[in-house]
Amino acid sequence: MTRRSEIDYFEKEKNAPAPLTAIVRRRVRFEEVDPLGIVWHGRYSSYFEDGRDAFGRKFHLKYYDMHDNGFIAPLIKFHADYHLPLEYQDEFLIYCSLSWSDAAKLNFSFKIEKMDKSIAATGYTVQIFTDLNRKLLILRPDFVNNLYNNWEELLKI
Amino acid sequence: MTRRSEIDYFEKEKNAPAPLTAIVRRRVRFEEVDPLGIVWHGRYSSYFEDGRDAFGRKFHLKYYDMHDNGFIAPLIKFHADYHLPLEYQDEFLIYCSLSWSDAAKLNFSFKIEKMDKSIAATGYTVQIFTDLNRKLLILRPDFVNNLYNNWEELLKI
Amino acid sequence: MTRRSEIDYFEKEKNAPAPLTAIVRRRVRFEEVDPLGIVWHGRYSSYFEDGRDAFGRKFHLKYYDMHDNGFIAPLIKFHADYHLPLEYQDEFLIYCSLSWSDAAKLNFSFKIEKMDKSIAATGYTVQIFTDLNRKLLILRPDFVNNLYNNWEELLKI
Amino acid sequence: MTRRSEIDYFEKEKNAPAPLTAIVRRRVRFEEVDPLGIVWHGRYSSYFEDGRDAFGRKFHLKYYDMHDNGFIAPLIKFHADYHLPLEYQDEFLIYCSLSWSDAAKLNFSFKIEKMDKSIAATGYTVQIFTDLNRKLLILRPDFVNNLYNNWEELLKI
Repeated sequence: MTRRSEIDYFEKEKNAPAPLTAIVRRRVRFEEVDPLGIVWHGRYSSYFEDGRDAFGRKFHLKYYDMHDNGFIAPLIKFHADYHLPLEYQDEFLIYCSLSWSDAAKLNFSFKIEKMDKSIAATGYTVQIFTDLNRKLLILRPDFVNNLYNNWEELLKI
Repeated sequence: MTRRSEIDYFEKEKNAPAPLTAIVRRRVRFEEVDPLGIVWHGRYSSYFEDGRDAFGRKFHLKYYDMHDNGFIAPLIKFHADYHLPLEYQDEFLIYCSLSWSDAAKLNFSFKIEKMDKSIAATGYTVQIFTDLNRKLLILRPDFVNNLYNNWEELLKI
Repeated sequence: MTRRSEIDYFEKEKNAPAPLTAIVRRRVRFEEVDPLGIVWHGRYSSYFEDGRDAFGRKFHLKYYDMHDNGFIAPLIKFHADYHLPLEYQDEFLIYCSLSWSDAAKLNFSFKIEKMDKSIAATGYTVQIFTDLNRKLLILRPDFVNNLYNNWEELLKI
Repeated sequence: MTRRSEIDYFEKEKNAPAPLTAIVRRRVRFEEVDPLGIVWHGRYSSYFEDGRDAFGRKFHLKYYDMHDNGFIAPLIKFHADYHLPLEYQDEFLIYCSLSWSDAAKLNFSFKIEKMDKSIAATGYTVQIFTDLNRKLLILRPDFVNNLYNNWEELLKI
């Protein structure tokens, strides 16, 4: 079973800066555990979303801010690789990293790390931009360009 | 453990007609089962909602129809009594009944019945009416009065 | 709309000590919000469970500890009263209180408090005790008596 | 946006027979819809699971039957491509196909088809086999070989 780092999912574009990363902690809930005693695989979309949410708070890229700026960023791809099971009450860190892309996309990768540093899961999501009528935007919205323009600065926080 | 019928939760108003009832079938999903091998108690809000949904389709009281008529019906109470556990793959019937009320409310009661006729759970919800700005409506919307005006007819379907 | 305190749901037994309370903080997730822009009512069973979980960690009454001691505590009642809607990204406190009971039951009540001190929801759950074969226990398990025997001490933490 | 058929995700092994497919119908629930009015991406793991479940019932490969035969089949990969949004009350078909594999794996692919024949989503999952202590099985369990031995017959049902 290969264990990709959270960055390997996206081929690094030439001269692109390193990814921006946010980290958030969470604990497995009783309701997330299946009859086999491990977290049901479908819950990881919630874990990844917590990562994107923490990213949005840290780097000013929140869902509702996007919406207020006239666009949304629907997912077109979700991928998860499961390496080790999580059990009830396990604590873990969710790493969420945005890889630089020249395209009008958000390429996030994820790592679920247990407290003993072992990797429970990795994965990625791809988001496009549309206006509020769901029409595809082929250019990155200005609001998102703010982040791209300050990428090197943001790497330091 | 008392086992109330789905009607006992609401005191019958004087001269009120019998409740209107819709029934829908469902099967327990793997993801709904907890580590103890039974359906986690919180899933029943989904089961009851399936009941209300079936009621809405049968008696023309759908969420989005309400919305199109300028109001919504938020829940102010949810109650469930658990009698027997449900297990993975169990099939069951959801009974959803609307009790007549002179007030501007929707009083639904629910019964989850297993295929052997035993009762897994009962419960009720209470909904009020608000306009789309969430301002309380003290009179029943016309759209809902349609149902009340035809109650006796609807009892026959 | 009445706003019961988290204690009023259970009639105080004569000479019974005050309830034990744990508090935990949480933030509304995107996935918990419905098309109307507010938390779907069914998510509150997860919020209440977070409260019971925090209580279990604080007062040594965890699910799996119970299981290791040969019993479980299934819910037989769940009740929620919704007072004010929660919206995406709202932070709130979950208060979970155990009311003293002479019976072999766990009577928990809950309060969801927004950061402005307004009450979003209240409710209660009732749990009974069964052995691992789901046979009802009519006496409180020793493991739970530990908590009852130290109740006055635990009120101070 | 490419729209892969449900089969393209797995390279067809040489001389391998066509995939086995089960189909099940479902309707979007209110609770599955997000504030943007479309099904939240994380719900598709439930939709795919319904597909696998229907497959298990049709071809005698149920979770609990596996368990009774001393093994389980945990997911190691989950992938979804989202093509068109689903909205509240939309009905859709879930196609679940098992691709032949010489390895000790279950390679399922999925297609979510709306009633107008448009494709809402596609995806795949990969499962391995472990014993009940989660030790990897490098050979396909006999119980699963039953299905492989009768593949050509099963294609006809």
